[in-house]
Amino acid sequence: MTIIDFRIRPPYKGFLNTAMYAGAERRDRITRAIQLEPSPAAQQKSVPMMLAEMDSAGIDLGVVVGRNSGALGSVDNAVVKEFCDAHPGRFIPVASVDPTDRKKAMRDIDAAISAGFRAVNIEPGGSSPPLHTDDRRLYPIYAHCEDRDVPLIIMTGGNAGPDLSYTAPDRLDRILGDFPALRIASAHGNWPWAHQILHVAFRRPNLYLSPDYLLSNMPGMDDFVKAADSWLADRFLYASAFPFAPIKGYLDWFRALPIRPENMDRILYYNAAKFLGLARDTPVS
Amino acid sequence: MTIIDFRIRPPYKGFLNTAMYAGAERRDRITRAIQLEPSPAAQQKSVPMMLAEMDSAGIDLGVVVGRNSGALGSVDNAVVKEFCDAHPGRFIPVASVDPTDRKKAMRDIDAAISAGFRAVNIEPGGSSPPLHTDDRRLYPIYAHCEDRDVPLIIMTGGNAGPDLSYTAPDRLDRILGDFPALRIASAHGNWPWAHQILHVAFRRPNLYLSPDYLLSNMPGMDDFVKAADSWLADRFLYASAFPFAPIKGYLDWFRALPIRPENMDRILYYNAAKFLGLARDTPVS
Amino acid sequence: MTIIDFRIRPPYKGFLNTAMYAGAERRDRITRAIQLEPSPAAQQKSVPMMLAEMDSAGIDLGVVVGRNSGALGSVDNAVVKEFCDAHPGRFIPVASVDPTDRKKAMRDIDAAISAGFRAVNIEPGGSSPPLHTDDRRLYPIYAHCEDRDVPLIIMTGGNAGPDLSYTAPDRLDRILGDFPALRIASAHGNWPWAHQILHVAFRRPNLYLSPDYLLSNMPGMDDFVKAADSWLADRFLYASAFPFAPIKGYLDWFRALPIRPENMDRILYYNAAKFLGLARDTPVS
Repeated sequence: MTIIDFRIRPPYKGFLNTAMYAGAERRDRITRAIQLEPSPAAQQKSVPMMLAEMDSAGIDLGVVVGRNSGALGSVDNAVVKEFCDAHPGRFIPVASVDPTDRKKAMRDIDAAISAGFRAVNIEPGGSSPPLHTDDRRLYPIYAHCEDRDVPLIIMTGGNAGPDLSYTAPDRLDRILGDFPALRIASAHGNWPWAHQILHVAFRRPNLYLSPDYLLSNMPGMDDFVKAADSWLADRFLYASAFPFAPIKGYLDWFRALPIRPENMDRILYYNAAKFLGLARDTPVS
Repeated sequence: MTIIDFRIRPPYKGFLNTAMYAGAERRDRITRAIQLEPSPAAQQKSVPMMLAEMDSAGIDLGVVVGRNSGALGSVDNAVVKEFCDAHPGRFIPVASVDPTDRKKAMRDIDAAISAGFRAVNIEPGGSSPPLHTDDRRLYPIYAHCEDRDVPLIIMTGGNAGPDLSYTAPDRLDRILGDFPALRIASAHGNWPWAHQILHVAFRRPNLYLSPDYLLSNMPGMDDFVKAADSWLADRFLYASAFPFAPIKGYLDWFRALPIRPENMDRILYYNAAKFLGLARDTPVS
Repeated sequence: MTIIDFRIRPPYKGFLNTAMYAGAERRDRITRAIQLEPSPAAQQKSVPMMLAEMDSAGIDLGVVVGRNSGALGSVDNAVVKEFCDAHPGRFIPVASVDPTDRKKAMRDIDAAISAGFRAVNIEPGGSSPPLHTDDRRLYPIYAHCEDRDVPLIIMTGGNAGPDLSYTAPDRLDRILGDFPALRIASAHGNWPWAHQILHVAFRRPNLYLSPDYLLSNMPGMDDFVKAADSWLADRFLYASAFPFAPIKGYLDWFRALPIRPENMDRILYYNAAKFLGLARDTPVS
């Protein structure tokens, strides 16, 4: 069986300057708060240890998501690509763009797709200035992605912006309705709005949910899991959000959830492949 | 024991043109998503089969709710009345009005009540243009109903409008406070705002909740059920929202919920009777 | 072991004129709705009975919170202080101020702290006019408290204002971010926004949650309890909100919750002591 971890940030070059590595103490406190043990690979900032952890967990592919955010730090797309290229067949690069400059963002998206990136990531609540996901200034970017069939990851859960309004699920509902052919993955799954985002996913077939580390023992977990094992089984994405959760520890925890094998397979591989357009000829429900 | 199903839409005349029958595939997908089996009566659009299903379930009375909505389709009130009259003692007609034209709506309400309809239904989020439930333009209609003791059903849960803001529970909270003598039933129970609407129901004695088919295995279900078996026992309404849930299958599922017999009786009959003014002399807690 | 009940309103002088005693029938209905039995001390408005109930429960200290609210009634701070002084070592006085007049509020806060009050309480949604917690007019008061290290209790849960928007958790999130050194206790724990306020507490270390009587058998309870026994263990406050819950009956119910002893100790005493600055030299995690 093939497994894709939909959100991995390796301890490599520019990643080391972002809060998730530079603020190791805070990060480990978060990991323990969700009742997992920090990964030694994260703590020792070791790429070889991270690869070994992936091997031991049986994770075949990692989606490497960078960052282009004033508040949360940035990682150059070239670094993301360089890392993925250095480990052929193990990682899938996602390009991050600054959504506050739409013309540049649109050029960067085209360049990234040409260069082999499989999706685009934006974190509007972490921009300068912070933007809500339904801000009209983002609409040209959404249209651009929809028109080119570029799947979009939006970080719109957890600490996505200056306050809770940046994860409000009505905003995402609006975008999904306005761009029905645009595939959107909600990184952090719009947590903590579990009830509400599940409704949005229920009505919007173009939404994929990736609650990742914020699923672990947090409010709404049971609702997410119940949906993952029923009507959301073909749009739930598995992700550790490493280094916030350990790659292996999180997978062990996740596989013990009450999700039936046929749905677990979809969640651990097919849904991400479908979202990213990796395996268009693979029979996916 | 008498049972009222508070929301039934028969496969009859104008109903057949609305999305719930015209879009049978989507409807059956929804039914299966909530882990119920579609009703053969719905699939075969058969009134006799629907009546037989009611008989076999032991449902004595069905509340027939039409629709007057641009986005969701419309059913003429005359058709609703004609259907109910054709099956004396089995159905209770509810009149739907277009809330965007208040003068006409007020006239239509008066005409409907004179003609024997027992309540009025509006779906403001499905109007053209869509209106939020606390839109000031609806206030004359609320005042009109309150002044005439006309109970009001508002479809303000699930896909009630273009986006999630159309089910936001603070809006209903405001109306209930502004019109304290107006009985309002929330069709679909403001789902997915389970926690929040239960608070609103806790503070507003004029609110009745009818989560209907969106209760079935969906987020918030346990909270609704817990309330239904305690402080909300005299304002929770039982409804299948047929054809979205099967009449008998849903009742079988509902009766197996952990709700004590004395509260189950209230929910399956007395609350709807009280709301509709059917049995004012029946001792209801 | 020492126990602090973080919210007690004795049947004494001005308290007797507020809705919680003047509207005894409504209050007892609420108590029964949360599946507890009303306290005889509340029903008989007896201070000696209340003291005896505290003794029998083993409650050492009660935090006495008054009220300065148009809609909910008012209790003079002098009455609060007089009551606490009359029972030395048993009660901790909190001063309430009217937040609609910022200059007076700031003077009253200074006077109260000088007079021995340990914290300040505001109920902006109950003011005339009602204010949302993130109303700019309250910001001078927040700055004043932050600059003087005065802990602030805000009643921002349950019936905190004219409608549900007065408990919206994004508002509190904003304040906590704007005044990171201001300790805020949310009385009623922003209920019914359990999922959302737990996220806010997860990201804001200056927030303490006190869901008090609205925890009991209400939506979100399990999420609050799970957090209380893990990452929120050092910021969850125990409170009965007497007379809405019985002092002893609520403690008995609370102690039976699945919270481990080391966390229960923090919740029943240390957290309140830390918030109030009572035991700065006590080792608190």
